[in-house]
Amino acid sequence: MADQNILSVEDLMSRVRAIFETAGLPPENARAVAHVIVAGERDNCKSHGLYRIEGCLRVIAAGKVAPDAVPQIHDAGRAVIEVDAGGGFSNPAFYAAKDLLAARAREMGLAALVIRDCLHFSALWHDVEALAGEGLAALSMCPSYAFVAPAGGKEPLLGTNPIAFGWPRPGSHPYVFDFATSVAARGEIELHRRAGTPIPEGWAVDHEGQPTTDPDAALSGAMLTFGAHKGSAISTMVELLAGAMLGEFMSKEALEFMGPGGLLPRHGALVLALDPQSFARRSGRDPIAEGERLLSAIGAQGARLPSERRFAARDRALAGGVVLSDAELAQLERFQAQGLAALDA
Amino acid sequence: MADQNILSVEDLMSRVRAIFETAGLPPENARAVAHVIVAGERDNCKSHGLYRIEGCLRVIAAGKVAPDAVPQIHDAGRAVIEVDAGGGFSNPAFYAAKDLLAARAREMGLAALVIRDCLHFSALWHDVEALAGEGLAALSMCPSYAFVAPAGGKEPLLGTNPIAFGWPRPGSHPYVFDFATSVAARGEIELHRRAGTPIPEGWAVDHEGQPTTDPDAALSGAMLTFGAHKGSAISTMVELLAGAMLGEFMSKEALEFMGPGGLLPRHGALVLALDPQSFARRSGRDPIAEGERLLSAIGAQGARLPSERRFAARDRALAGGVVLSDAELAQLERFQAQGLAALDA
Repeated sequence: MADQNILSVEDLMSRVRAIFETAGLPPENARAVAHVIVAGERDNCKSHGLYRIEGCLRVIAAGKVAPDAVPQIHDAGRAVIEVDAGGGFSNPAFYAAKDLLAARAREMGLAALVIRDCLHFSALWHDVEALAGEGLAALSMCPSYAFVAPAGGKEPLLGTNPIAFGWPRPGSHPYVFDFATSVAARGEIELHRRAGTPIPEGWAVDHEGQPTTDPDAALSGAMLTFGAHKGSAISTMVELLAGAMLGEFMSKEALEFMGPGGLLPRHGALVLALDPQSFARRSGRDPIAEGERLLSAIGAQGARLPSERRFAARDRALAGGVVLSDAELAQLERFQAQGLAALDA
Repeated sequence: MADQNILSVEDLMSRVRAIFETAGLPPENARAVAHVIVAGERDNCKSHGLYRIEGCLRVIAAGKVAPDAVPQIHDAGRAVIEVDAGGGFSNPAFYAAKDLLAARAREMGLAALVIRDCLHFSALWHDVEALAGEGLAALSMCPSYAFVAPAGGKEPLLGTNPIAFGWPRPGSHPYVFDFATSVAARGEIELHRRAGTPIPEGWAVDHEGQPTTDPDAALSGAMLTFGAHKGSAISTMVELLAGAMLGEFMSKEALEFMGPGGLLPRHGALVLALDPQSFARRSGRDPIAEGERLLSAIGAQGARLPSERRFAARDRALAGGVVLSDAELAQLERFQAQGLAALDA
């Protein structure tokens, strides 16, 4: 097909790094941001792939992010490590502290990483996969923009509050899930609005708290959580642990701070890392082998594990490259050539 | 009403303690077990109230629990504390380690408690409330019996795998949720079977993995998780973290070990305690006040917080006593008078 352009993952990585270096990010920061964006594209996770470049450049152009912030680690030798992103993107902060977090988890059994004051656009699976690659179980969560009402309510107080979990699997991609605690993404409702089609029941309520399938009523009302009151409880937990507990913005403040312009939210993030070998030691059992018995039995009965499609896309991309449409490639080249100026085009 | 007998919480507590002391539990163990059973009854959480006495006595009579096990704490000064329940009930083990867990969480920022080799019958809200009472956030989870299939599957591999979370609220009951990750409890399906009524759609699949509303087909098939693939992912996480990672029984082994006789499952449990003051300190914000802003805003829009009904029942019981039916009181008195021998009656 004429509309298919194949780029290697390495080629894509060097192009995206260059875009962010041109936009004012120091090499370390550009590498961290490019790494997660290219990983999203590589995994055919388009909502977190090249599509994100424009959003990142827009917050830079708006002066709402500190592109050259150097992450500052604060470590008192306890089980909680903090890293101040200094108003920069979350990714350089995570990378700056990842090895220390992994070492601390092995030493203490478990450890937590607090990322403070960051702009957040990346999928959380990236962080938990990095830790699973170190043989650790990991749990990551953060608030976002308050577009979601609690179960039984009508006013948006909660974010889409994603939660991700990773578990190491020997010789295989890890067990990873990463999902919004809202039943759908806000972008999906927007797509229905543009297409003039109703949204499915259960996605949202209008501003009076009544169920609605009208995208406009949903966007001016509130989205709902997955799993009714149970999902709402989990979303509230994310808000408390990754917002209130850290002393960072909660979803309502994040929205008020950035305004309705659609720029990236500013808040904190919480990452827990747990060392299965350390937890299991006295039992005499191999925790990874035990996990494998469960995960292989799930696969054996034909049930899909989360992230399987994403891993299959990754394997294809690493073997045969990433496929971009003409429009995607043209935009990439425009960002490469013109940097922030391409935003006005 | 003639069928209403009112007992004070203290009276109930001394009766239930006496039952377990007569059944062979040392005073400390009897107190811990009685405490959670009476708390369940006090909160009108009947499924974890006096109803549980018979099940506990049955595992004692069957020789499947060590009633006099003394919990052994293993602490290397790290962020993970272990307590061996020694084949006894989980409750004495939790109480034995609770203060140490809370102190370690304050010292380290967060800490985990591993309960090993216990028989488990109590609701997890009890543990997270105890820690919230210490000003800590807490997360608790455990496997159970494998009656639940993963999303897209048909064979039961997962337990009803409960998860509970607690967050302290000043001058008020804490924010607490505690729910099974299965969409319903197995007992609810059994009630439908006895009543000859169909179960709601979405609760279960038959042994071929097809959706069913027939209670018999559900009981010989598999239950489903709440929230489709997201709930299934969370249930799998519970199985990995509170089963595989601890090197303790997973839900499938727990079922195989105890057999189909309906006795209590034997496995481990994981409790995380996090100190909000410690996490928030460098932010300069008060994490509890931030949490309060969210929780009061949820209440202000008319949405119910989890556990509210339970707390209202507690307040009523503490003020005016616990109401028992004639049959409930008669059974309680039978257990008091005859101990394990009452099981044969």
